[in-house]
Amino acid sequence: MVLSELATQLVVPVAAVVGIAFAVLQWVLVSKVKVTPERRDGEGASSGAAAGAGKNGAAAGSEYLIEEEEGLNDHNVVVKCAEIQTAISEGATSFLFTEYKYAGGFMAIFAVLIFLFLGSIEGFSTKDQACHYSKGKTCKPALANALFSTIAFVLGAITSLVSGFLGMKIATYANARTTLEARKGVGKAFITAFRSGAVMGFLLAASGLFVLYVAINVFGLYYGDDWEGLFEAITGYGLGGSSMALFGRVGGGIYTKAADVGADLVGKVERNIPEDDPRNPAVIADNVGDNVGDIAGMGSDLFGSYAESSCAALVVASISSFGINHEFTPMMYPLLISSVGIIACLITTLFATDFFEVKAVDEIEPALKKQLIISTALMTVGIALVSWLGLPSTFTIFNFGAQKTVHNWQLFLCVSVGLWAGLVIGFVTEYYTSNAYSPVQDVADSCRTGAATNVIFGLALGYKSVIIPIFAIAFSIFLSFSLAAMYGVAVAALGMLSTIATGLAIDAYGPISDNAGGIAEMAGMSHRIRERTDALDAAGNTTAAIGKGFAIGSAALVSLALFGAFVSRAGITTVDVLTPNVFIGLLVGAMLPYWFSAMTMKSVGSAALKMVEEVRRQFNTIPGLMEGTAKPDYATCVKISTDASIKEMIPPGALVMLTPLIVGTFFGVETLSGVLAGALVSGVQIAISASNTGGAWDNAKKYIEAGASEHARTLGPKGSDCHKAAVIGDTIGDPLKDTSGPSLNILIKLMAVESLVFAPFFATYGGILFKWL
Amino acid sequence: MVLSELATQLVVPVAAVVGIAFAVLQWVLVSKVKVTPERRDGEGASSGAAAGAGKNGAAAGSEYLIEEEEGLNDHNVVVKCAEIQTAISEGATSFLFTEYKYAGGFMAIFAVLIFLFLGSIEGFSTKDQACHYSKGKTCKPALANALFSTIAFVLGAITSLVSGFLGMKIATYANARTTLEARKGVGKAFITAFRSGAVMGFLLAASGLFVLYVAINVFGLYYGDDWEGLFEAITGYGLGGSSMALFGRVGGGIYTKAADVGADLVGKVERNIPEDDPRNPAVIADNVGDNVGDIAGMGSDLFGSYAESSCAALVVASISSFGINHEFTPMMYPLLISSVGIIACLITTLFATDFFEVKAVDEIEPALKKQLIISTALMTVGIALVSWLGLPSTFTIFNFGAQKTVHNWQLFLCVSVGLWAGLVIGFVTEYYTSNAYSPVQDVADSCRTGAATNVIFGLALGYKSVIIPIFAIAFSIFLSFSLAAMYGVAVAALGMLSTIATGLAIDAYGPISDNAGGIAEMAGMSHRIRERTDALDAAGNTTAAIGKGFAIGSAALVSLALFGAFVSRAGITTVDVLTPNVFIGLLVGAMLPYWFSAMTMKSVGSAALKMVEEVRRQFNTIPGLMEGTAKPDYATCVKISTDASIKEMIPPGALVMLTPLIVGTFFGVETLSGVLAGALVSGVQIAISASNTGGAWDNAKKYIEAGASEHARTLGPKGSDCHKAAVIGDTIGDPLKDTSGPSLNILIKLMAVESLVFAPFFATYGGILFKWL
Repeated sequence: MVLSELATQLVVPVAAVVGIAFAVLQWVLVSKVKVTPERRDGEGASSGAAAGAGKNGAAAGSEYLIEEEEGLNDHNVVVKCAEIQTAISEGATSFLFTEYKYAGGFMAIFAVLIFLFLGSIEGFSTKDQACHYSKGKTCKPALANALFSTIAFVLGAITSLVSGFLGMKIATYANARTTLEARKGVGKAFITAFRSGAVMGFLLAASGLFVLYVAINVFGLYYGDDWEGLFEAITGYGLGGSSMALFGRVGGGIYTKAADVGADLVGKVERNIPEDDPRNPAVIADNVGDNVGDIAGMGSDLFGSYAESSCAALVVASISSFGINHEFTPMMYPLLISSVGIIACLITTLFATDFFEVKAVDEIEPALKKQLIISTALMTVGIALVSWLGLPSTFTIFNFGAQKTVHNWQLFLCVSVGLWAGLVIGFVTEYYTSNAYSPVQDVADSCRTGAATNVIFGLALGYKSVIIPIFAIAFSIFLSFSLAAMYGVAVAALGMLSTIATGLAIDAYGPISDNAGGIAEMAGMSHRIRERTDALDAAGNTTAAIGKGFAIGSAALVSLALFGAFVSRAGITTVDVLTPNVFIGLLVGAMLPYWFSAMTMKSVGSAALKMVEEVRRQFNTIPGLMEGTAKPDYATCVKISTDASIKEMIPPGALVMLTPLIVGTFFGVETLSGVLAGALVSGVQIAISASNTGGAWDNAKKYIEAGASEHARTLGPKGSDCHKAAVIGDTIGDPLKDTSGPSLNILIKLMAVESLVFAPFFATYGGILFKWL
Repeated sequence: MVLSELATQLVVPVAAVVGIAFAVLQWVLVSKVKVTPERRDGEGASSGAAAGAGKNGAAAGSEYLIEEEEGLNDHNVVVKCAEIQTAISEGATSFLFTEYKYAGGFMAIFAVLIFLFLGSIEGFSTKDQACHYSKGKTCKPALANALFSTIAFVLGAITSLVSGFLGMKIATYANARTTLEARKGVGKAFITAFRSGAVMGFLLAASGLFVLYVAINVFGLYYGDDWEGLFEAITGYGLGGSSMALFGRVGGGIYTKAADVGADLVGKVERNIPEDDPRNPAVIADNVGDNVGDIAGMGSDLFGSYAESSCAALVVASISSFGINHEFTPMMYPLLISSVGIIACLITTLFATDFFEVKAVDEIEPALKKQLIISTALMTVGIALVSWLGLPSTFTIFNFGAQKTVHNWQLFLCVSVGLWAGLVIGFVTEYYTSNAYSPVQDVADSCRTGAATNVIFGLALGYKSVIIPIFAIAFSIFLSFSLAAMYGVAVAALGMLSTIATGLAIDAYGPISDNAGGIAEMAGMSHRIRERTDALDAAGNTTAAIGKGFAIGSAALVSLALFGAFVSRAGITTVDVLTPNVFIGLLVGAMLPYWFSAMTMKSVGSAALKMVEEVRRQFNTIPGLMEGTAKPDYATCVKISTDASIKEMIPPGALVMLTPLIVGTFFGVETLSGVLAGALVSGVQIAISASNTGGAWDNAKKYIEAGASEHARTLGPKGSDCHKAAVIGDTIGDPLKDTSGPSLNILIKLMAVESLVFAPFFATYGGILFKWL
């Protein structure tokens, strides 16, 4: 161990600040693209010349090199883009404010609950108590832990909300800019979209780290030597982050798909107008949905995972030799990993934006994939460095009652296996969801015999795509669990999340490009511009699937780590399947993801039907709408999606939040352990298969539409029977891949972190039903 | 305890023989319906008069009272029915013979494997060994156990094959007879179909019991006092039964849905001809499929469950006080339960066939449901009787290393809770799959906005339908597990299966009616006859779903019991989720149902595509086929389904059979325990949701077609957009409800029983990978 406490106290905040500064820099660079047409004279002249040069270049180049500049002089287009952007941004802001109003109410109530439940453990006594693990020492009163857990909860929740909001802001700030840059060529547009994604990624990773770091230090002023209590209270941070993710993922997921499915069902199917057509009243709601669901929702989900895995690692470390011997630097190992991660991702970003340039359409996807590989490779070195500098060569880790001896190189393996498992999951996801490979092509081919075979083959594909990711997760768990018990699993999760800044950047890139395409269509820009944004979007579809794979994989590791931390805090040493309590917990837990999915899918269905009615109403009652002479009432559709999503998220939200409380209070910690394990092992499968099935259907449809190969052309064109069958699959896949599938991450993580926070209460008062029997 | 050993030795075989005699009696009654038109003169005259009387009655009666006799004089119809029946019967026989050829080969190889694995434990020594549980005594050599396990395996396999074959025979014997009886009225047709189902039910339940009873007694001649070895060897019976169910369920399931989907895709969708139209070349294969999949397959599945739960109970009993103290009557408690079950079901059957009469269409479904309620009520009394007469008031049960004291009334509760849980599952299944209730009506309603919303709502319905059955199963497990450890769970499973004769009767009734309808259509019988068979069939659809619910529920209990027996035999005392071995087992185990479903669904898809090609080829190359002047080549379609199903079942079959061997041998018994528990808790959910989703789509379609309510008529008629959307859902549901869903029963049971049989081997040599590390 080389790093002193002082060095650690410097490295972590510096890395966080560097990350934030980098995000701001990217923002500044994006803002250079103007969406106001004031400076028309000078710019018009120079770009007119460039357009001429571009035209010659394109004529000489390959057919995929769409680098020709065009439409730069049409200032009406800029005005229109600005208008649409404003509408989307306002819609998103209005949704998020409504959502945050409810989230705020929930936060207040739940904060009180946490305080009351945890405070009641020692009867709200303000006296110090004997420590659980540091024998012979005194720790702070349970009431203090209750108070600081509550504060940490609120901190986590606010950090999540602010990050999500800023991410959405930059995304809606960047979408029209990407469209405008697309006039100059695909490379410029790519950089704009990617930089905007990076703002989101770095802001979230760095601010999450920074707030956690500050909280530990500030709470430490009160807790002093009582690290047990300190890090128990810090777990509230994870719960706060994750419970806001419930709103982001579930509420946002319902919003985006209600709008999308509703818009498609009337627009594409009944009225036969193209996607993103400005005549469709739900089109703005659809674009808003991309921002609130895929950006704010995904961001809050991954922020939750990050906060939770850090908390799980910290709480286990606090009762291991690091915590008991008060070794600050090794205690901060999880934060050091994240700090190095920010730096590694920063360097990685430069590869996409500065070191290399995307010049053609077929370079986009490789550029994004390279980001994953480079960040993983750099991070492996970073982990080695941190493990060597930040850890003693030998130490002990708490292992359900016993202490297990671990070496620093073993922790290096734990973090690395998580990191690389993430990459494997990412690439397997890509294989099953990209239409460059045979699985999606087979699904597209099955459209020949209609929608039914398309659905059968798509479902089978999703089921099959689970196999390798599960083996990858199982291998990571086996290795990290064997080497360093639950601490190993927690840092493996952190390893998978250590490249979160890059992961989020390429993930947010997708919806931004999708929006850019929508804006191009609505602003009536030329077919060639639309082709460029479509190319950006197609790559974004695949990276979105990869992002979901990461999110699910890390959620699985995180919830296992949280589960382990819960079990440790609850004082359980075995969770034996051969006891009725545990087994029925396992069985019922494995059922919860189905119950939850039934709710979220039905929610999307019902909300979409409301949207369909409104869109039909507008088409029927607004004269001139179909002819394009009258404007639709976008705001009502935005409001319908907003209201429906808030209302529809209550039952699934209640299921997630109440299950641990009810099971823990009435059936006790063993049954709750079973429920958590069951929900984890069952939920991860449905989540992966639902995401991949949906992604495959989406890209099978795109494969037929694009008609880029001989085979694809035999299935198309748009409007053929095959294509109609593919559209049905795509619509079914929408709620699977963007609502019910990713929401399951929240289910498994949130139940685990909630159990962890309430563990002291359950251990003291839980299982009243069995006690009473 | 009142029953002496002698009395027990009498009661069990007598009940079995009574059951077989009753089956034969039903067969004789069915055979009274003639499908040969020799006796034309006399019969024609008398039934002509009856027809006249019937017409008057119908005019006065309600619109649902379709009791008018008609078409009795048309002897061409009888000849045609006989022809079609022969074609179906020959197709089914040819498939089963092909299947049995492969099953025979598999049986031979696996028998050798069992012998070698189990014989190797003591190095093929012929010397007696010390007993494991009866301390101080000597038991028979491992080689003898290997030999007798092998014999029991072969016995179980043959019993399963013979029962399945006879069931198929009676079904194909009864289908045309049901059609012909439908001319006389719905009541007569109902009785014919139901009696035929009863033949199957009683034959299977009674012969299964009889062979098991004989095997125990014959093996006992060799084993003498060594009950440990005797009942260890008997477990081979369960494995034999269950491994043939693999062929029946998976092979039969692929067969039936390849034919069905293939026939529909070309017939209904492309050529626009009705279901069961004789011009469709795949129509005979489709009808054959009902018999080999839904009858022989379901029969072998439930026979497997029955054999396995008996074996699981016996093996645990043999190391409990019953076995150690050599108390014969309590030892035979599982067989006594089944014996009483046969008698209770016999009385129940009379309620349908003799005590009451079905007179109108709307009395069919209640009559079938009453069967379930009556048999459950009677059986509750029967269980009380057996528990009082056959058990000592207090005894001990082996509970993972310890002995647990149990009272006879507690075992009564264990068996009863299983029995009643079965009824609850049955009624919940009915609620979610019958179009008399709102869930299916909502799904039908969602067809308004197209196939996509139909699929989304259908999937959500399936997910939701899991909730109550899982709570019912969890409650049964909790109660029986708490009261009598794994023995309790095993007898709870037996309780659920104790009314198997009735369950199978109403289950087999469905496909027989379905076939009867097909024959009516193909023989060109009148619309009114078709209406009657459709009414029989509609009730059959619901009971089929109920049957599947039973099959899955009992499979869950059975595999838990087998799991418990495996753990006991392998000498494990805890299966701790907090160890990496178990946890990764759990995670990978929960993935297996997805892998397996991916295979079976893809299999159906591929086989159906082959069928589509053949049907298209015939329509294109046989002149006059569409006009009805030329006959299609049915035999080729039958052959395609046969070959495809045999070929396609190899990968999923290998997955099931090899997983326990590989995991046990390389990763050891703890990991295998995790895999079994994971597969169980995850598989049961997919199985229930897949079956119910499929059933709901099927009945949503039927709801629109029937147009029996105001609401239904707004969605129809046949051929409307709504109906087309419903047909797509129905086609997707076919493989879900008849192949991948029910096949999962086999996955979870077969892996568990195989692990149990190989437990002594794994305990001695297993886990070589971890030993090597």
